[in-house]
Amino acid sequence: MAPKGDNVVVSNMKLERMLSMKGGKGEASYANNSQAQALHAKSMLHLLEETLDVAQLNSPEVPFVVVDLGCSCGNNTIYIVDVIIKHMIKRYEALGSEPPEFSAFFSDLPSNDFNTLFQLLPPLANDGGSMEECLAADNHRSYFAAGVPGSFYKRLFPASSIDVFYSAFSLHWLSQVPECVLDKRSAAYNNGRVFIHGANESTAKAYKKQFQTDLAGFLRSRSKEMKRGGSMFLVCLGRTSVDPTDQGGAGLLFGTHFQDAWDDLIQEGLISSEKRDNFNIPVYAPSLQDFKEVVEAVGSFSINKLEVFKGGSPLVVNQPDDPAEVGRALANSCRSVAGVLVDAHLGDLVSEELFTRVESRATSQAKELLEQLQFFHIVASLSFA
Amino acid sequence: MAPKGDNVVVSNMKLERMLSMKGGKGEASYANNSQAQALHAKSMLHLLEETLDVAQLNSPEVPFVVVDLGCSCGNNTIYIVDVIIKHMIKRYEALGSEPPEFSAFFSDLPSNDFNTLFQLLPPLANDGGSMEECLAADNHRSYFAAGVPGSFYKRLFPASSIDVFYSAFSLHWLSQVPECVLDKRSAAYNNGRVFIHGANESTAKAYKKQFQTDLAGFLRSRSKEMKRGGSMFLVCLGRTSVDPTDQGGAGLLFGTHFQDAWDDLIQEGLISSEKRDNFNIPVYAPSLQDFKEVVEAVGSFSINKLEVFKGGSPLVVNQPDDPAEVGRALANSCRSVAGVLVDAHLGDLVSEELFTRVESRATSQAKELLEQLQFFHIVASLSFA
Repeated sequence: MAPKGDNVVVSNMKLERMLSMKGGKGEASYANNSQAQALHAKSMLHLLEETLDVAQLNSPEVPFVVVDLGCSCGNNTIYIVDVIIKHMIKRYEALGSEPPEFSAFFSDLPSNDFNTLFQLLPPLANDGGSMEECLAADNHRSYFAAGVPGSFYKRLFPASSIDVFYSAFSLHWLSQVPECVLDKRSAAYNNGRVFIHGANESTAKAYKKQFQTDLAGFLRSRSKEMKRGGSMFLVCLGRTSVDPTDQGGAGLLFGTHFQDAWDDLIQEGLISSEKRDNFNIPVYAPSLQDFKEVVEAVGSFSINKLEVFKGGSPLVVNQPDDPAEVGRALANSCRSVAGVLVDAHLGDLVSEELFTRVESRATSQAKELLEQLQFFHIVASLSFA
Repeated sequence: MAPKGDNVVVSNMKLERMLSMKGGKGEASYANNSQAQALHAKSMLHLLEETLDVAQLNSPEVPFVVVDLGCSCGNNTIYIVDVIIKHMIKRYEALGSEPPEFSAFFSDLPSNDFNTLFQLLPPLANDGGSMEECLAADNHRSYFAAGVPGSFYKRLFPASSIDVFYSAFSLHWLSQVPECVLDKRSAAYNNGRVFIHGANESTAKAYKKQFQTDLAGFLRSRSKEMKRGGSMFLVCLGRTSVDPTDQGGAGLLFGTHFQDAWDDLIQEGLISSEKRDNFNIPVYAPSLQDFKEVVEAVGSFSINKLEVFKGGSPLVVNQPDDPAEVGRALANSCRSVAGVLVDAHLGDLVSEELFTRVESRATSQAKELLEQLQFFHIVASLSFA
């Protein structure tokens, strides 16, 4: 008989209410482990600005509404929203027009740490003043802010209400682990593995189908919510290989040391093999083709740009020659994004054991990790005609 | 010399970023101590519905937008928003019109526990279905939800974007303790006291002026944010006495056992008298006249109704004959709304001592408390023409 609790599978409903980047401000928190995401986002600012340049401007009486989908709880989202709004103000000014009022919606799953995000938000600039005075005020925001809890694979906003959608490093998170992947009786059962990387063909098909179903749901929801002439900038983990079982950087992050650490726990008798097999990371790094098929099938958006972009390493380290720092960075990076799911599946104590093993394994392979761990991103600029 | 830290006065900026009802789900949390507010809100539903009946209906293509200002983090706000939206849907249906999409904004200071609120929110009803199907789905919400962090004494929303504002049990919270009340050199210095109740005339004037300035800021902000024809339902603690130093129920809550407990701490040498005098509760229960003067001076809103409403006791107890339960209820009630401020001023340990004394004092006067502790509320129904 399997140990108690081994057959508990996180249901899809639970995943939607549970998944989040690690909240708070601790060592393994997302707020303290998203410097790489910040760097990658900054390296793509020129692509974002190209997308903003095609968004249609309304009359200044109509508020201009910007959304970050999958915002998480750190400073990255505040930085990006600020960039977007400042760029749009410049566009209004270039036309000799008074800028409108701006609204920004920060959206993520209900389990996201919105409290931390809201406390990081700068105060609203003096509302008695003009928009120009607001902009001149340092460390203040020049937009109305709101947080929106919910899954971006469904509707989040009223119809025809949004001008610009932005989503970075989120769409590779599936709405659920495909059920058959956790089902022993299925050909897609991912026996012995916790991620699609290196899995069999049926498992890979199930992951791909889930990704494409989810992305279609995302695009259909956005097509209802967007104003005519609005534009959308999407970035998610991608892969350069045609074969979905070669997940590239995501594969290295979740399919090697992280995978092996689960096996360590089994060999040490800390968990059963079933406990491992009941867990999978709901991530899929699509190829350009995977992504493009969905955008074209949904059909509501025209493609301004769709490309694979080299994003660099997710590891930000001060001393690349220090294997311990590299190992710690990998474990923290892994934990900041997948830790909440692992904690829920294993409990805090065993989860701690797991990440200790991720760290020591990564430390012993620090040089290879720094050389090989590269992320590629799918970057999509879409317009709603 | 005063003990270290005694001269630290909570600045206004800090108050705006700090004040909140007690978050989480513990014994003294607001979520577990707002049954009285729930009962009082329910007893006023007919007044709320009268206000909703005068709100102008838009065409069904335009989303109908509802806001709860000072929502806190418990179930009360979710209940009320549901009541408002169901009532508006009935009005659309009575006209033979398809209901529009609904948006609800839950707003409070950035220190509010939005995480708890968002986790209490029911999931959105199946967005593939019609609005009717959504409404038929139990335990689901039929509106898009967002949280808005910020002070309602300033702007929170874009211009002309809101149909209905609701605010209950919040507008008696001042934006700050008037500075002169904490200033030794001022005639308004509230020497020996932590609340306006029983204070001198200058102190009372300062509190009243702060309330009226704040309410004017509130109304001016709302007049910019509201759509033409929108309506607003406001409830706050009020008093029946002309004299502002007789604060009625609020006076009993903050001006008797709570006041005396501060004096206990001084007598026991746990704090200095200066420490007490540097603290005041930023609450003002206005008279009808105090409130009316501001609405008329601002002038943007027409008054449908403005009255004092008997709200009942804030103490919800199972066994009124059990003094210990009554005492605990008073201490928890006090702590759920003022605990965050007291914790910040005294530190958690001394704050714990304070509320222990509130509890034992209240226990010894349980019978009188149950008889005398009655809240009155100002209820205002306003329209934006």
